[in-house]
Amino acid sequence: MKLMQLGTPGAETPVVLTEDGHVHALSGLTARIDGAFLAADGIARVRREIEAGRLPLVQPEGLRVGPPVARPGKVVCIGLNYRDHAEETGAAIPSRPVVFMKDPATVVGPYDQVLIPRGSVRTDWEVELAVVIGRQARYLADPSEAAAVIAGYTISNDVSEREFQLEYSTQWDLGKSCESFNPLGPYLVPADEVTDPQALGLGLTVNGEVRQDGNTKHMIFDVQYLIWYLSQYMVLNPGDVINTGTPAGVALGLPGTPYLRAGDTVELSIDGLGTQRQTFVNA
Amino acid sequence: MKLMQLGTPGAETPVVLTEDGHVHALSGLTARIDGAFLAADGIARVRREIEAGRLPLVQPEGLRVGPPVARPGKVVCIGLNYRDHAEETGAAIPSRPVVFMKDPATVVGPYDQVLIPRGSVRTDWEVELAVVIGRQARYLADPSEAAAVIAGYTISNDVSEREFQLEYSTQWDLGKSCESFNPLGPYLVPADEVTDPQALGLGLTVNGEVRQDGNTKHMIFDVQYLIWYLSQYMVLNPGDVINTGTPAGVALGLPGTPYLRAGDTVELSIDGLGTQRQTFVNA
Repeated sequence: MKLMQLGTPGAETPVVLTEDGHVHALSGLTARIDGAFLAADGIARVRREIEAGRLPLVQPEGLRVGPPVARPGKVVCIGLNYRDHAEETGAAIPSRPVVFMKDPATVVGPYDQVLIPRGSVRTDWEVELAVVIGRQARYLADPSEAAAVIAGYTISNDVSEREFQLEYSTQWDLGKSCESFNPLGPYLVPADEVTDPQALGLGLTVNGEVRQDGNTKHMIFDVQYLIWYLSQYMVLNPGDVINTGTPAGVALGLPGTPYLRAGDTVELSIDGLGTQRQTFVNA
Repeated sequence: MKLMQLGTPGAETPVVLTEDGHVHALSGLTARIDGAFLAADGIARVRREIEAGRLPLVQPEGLRVGPPVARPGKVVCIGLNYRDHAEETGAAIPSRPVVFMKDPATVVGPYDQVLIPRGSVRTDWEVELAVVIGRQARYLADPSEAAAVIAGYTISNDVSEREFQLEYSTQWDLGKSCESFNPLGPYLVPADEVTDPQALGLGLTVNGEVRQDGNTKHMIFDVQYLIWYLSQYMVLNPGDVINTGTPAGVALGLPGTPYLRAGDTVELSIDGLGTQRQTFVNA
């Protein structure tokens, strides 16, 4: 099953897409898919309701797809987590995960327009496997404990403005936190329905041209290691989102650095997690 | 007047401390002091209720003081914003504000215990003037427009773990986002009751010994400039908190680098904004 939120920004309602292709309302269970719902065994409750046939059908046609998690408490990002991407940016292979943050208010729907910031000439894309936390993680003893705190997976576009990120100071958050810079979705796939999160093809096209074509098996630090590592330094709470890094093929690393311009359309996909598509427009 | 939140973590109730020293309940106006309340003219509404004598008195004795803003959407921090602090850390004077973020879940009350992370040997303090946003700021035309979006001011302890911050990667957020690392409060003073935010003495002691003794007039980038600058790159939303940087005197810059140990007590004060006091304990 796939959890989604449909409707206008800030007023989305939760639904579940079942294996038979039907969309069922979850409004009777929860007002939104958020940390509180996930922590209260929300995914198991949805399964029980589906099995019992108690969820009303909804007609999703014409409804906007919102992000599949409402109001994440934080968005933690891992930098340079694919060897080929570290190399294309001229960075050393990190010996520890490189951790930074995006403003959680940057999270938008997977098909929403993305704004190129005023004054930007270096707006860039990054397809990433996003992990959504379902239970609090604090000082996990071992990476194997990470599985129990992961609610599921979705796609993230970790949009980046390279001048703001890399030239204005040593700290990257400024160029990662511009308005609408984190398309998320289209849906949340429960962790136990993703056979192996370290064997997912992920790719991105710009105006139909393939720019990124990677596989999560090439992560330097895998998902369970990342969750364990982060839990040694911060508390991961239900609803938090972890962007696990991007493979090679961003504009920064390509010949001619083909940064995004108004009118460009970016399409992202990850095996089993669906497809995102955004048109970029000037802010 | 001073806005506060009293009660157990996550279940605080809002109150106002008036000039006559009385504490009045705000529960009839709002469940909490947050972005939605501030954006809906909350401060003006509190003033009208005080003038009308409509707010019931409360007895605050014995109640924990929580942070004066509930659930900030983000905590933006400015690094190296006092010349003497940049010099003590060996950093160059920045030509633009250095912007990074803390996990908003690190915000705790001004008298709560602060946890020294497991494995930490370099936990440090930073007294800072915190700005609380009251109206959305997006591409402000000029620093003078910043005044209209500031709800008020309070004290922040931007607690930092220097090994996690400076040695584990180039990105600082990891060493800034440990559990309980952002004591905030004790109260929010409305912006129009702070005569000049650039003329506030601010100081910090550790076990009674003066460690920081600065003045906000020595900021490299002043509050209005910072708000204007940030608004060019991210949207500042009501309830967001901006930590505006710390003056000299942190452990990192002192002879013998006297980092915090379990049992140490840190006291912070800013003119007109009150006093914080935390005891540090091992996580």
